[in-house]
Amino acid sequence: MGTRREISTLPPEADLARADSLAREIFSDIANKWAFLIIEFLGQRTMRFSELRDEVGGISHKMLTQNLRLLERNGLISRTVYPTVPPRVEYTLTEAGDALRGVVDGMCGWTQRYLRQIEASRAEYDA
Amino acid sequence: MGTRREISTLPPEADLARADSLAREIFSDIANKWAFLIIEFLGQRTMRFSELRDEVGGISHKMLTQNLRLLERNGLISRTVYPTVPPRVEYTLTEAGDALRGVVDGMCGWTQRYLRQIEASRAEYDA
Repeated sequence: MGTRREISTLPPEADLARADSLAREIFSDIANKWAFLIIEFLGQRTMRFSELRDEVGGISHKMLTQNLRLLERNGLISRTVYPTVPPRVEYTLTEAGDALRGVVDGMCGWTQRYLRQIEASRAEYDA
Repeated sequence: MGTRREISTLPPEADLARADSLAREIFSDIANKWAFLIIEFLGQRTMRFSELRDEVGGISHKMLTQNLRLLERNGLISRTVYPTVPPRVEYTLTEAGDALRGVVDGMCGWTQRYLRQIEASRAEYDA
């Protein structure tokens, strides 16, 4: 079945280490306002690029493109191209992306709530 | 009260931008097995360094120290030194750290559950 199949036979320790570095990468990638907002809006319904741009508000074309690619690469959203003229492109949360919504809500709420305390703690620790 | 007090009068946009970069830093910092485990065990009760090391298992003295400092700096745990001989040092989750437990559980569970799908998605996207 080729070398990729070997992944599922790796010992649990290797799985843990991979989950570890993957979690670090993904949560670092998505811990930004734009990714949070994109996940939130796509959680409501499938959207075209232009709809998403209107909903998110204040995001540049380039920044929206970058974030969508990043989310797509990590399997959090899927991108469907319809062969119309011009082509219609729609973005949808995948099952993994949808399951992430609750986690993102939690991250967002926690950060907003404890922002000042964390900053104060850092300033004190560094002093 | 000095310049630090000005923080609370910053406009919401500045708050959002700061929350953003802070969230990115913190969730990147704690998205690793050791930080997850430390938060989990301290969520059960206050512990001394040696107890925590025994509970976590397999963590080096240096790695535990590093992670504890990082969690302390971000205001997630507090460190209390009792003036015994030798000094007794105890670690406790702060309110912010305790509130983070649910988020960490969510991050952890999500990563374990979707690990293979995410890896497959990345491999496909990069191909």
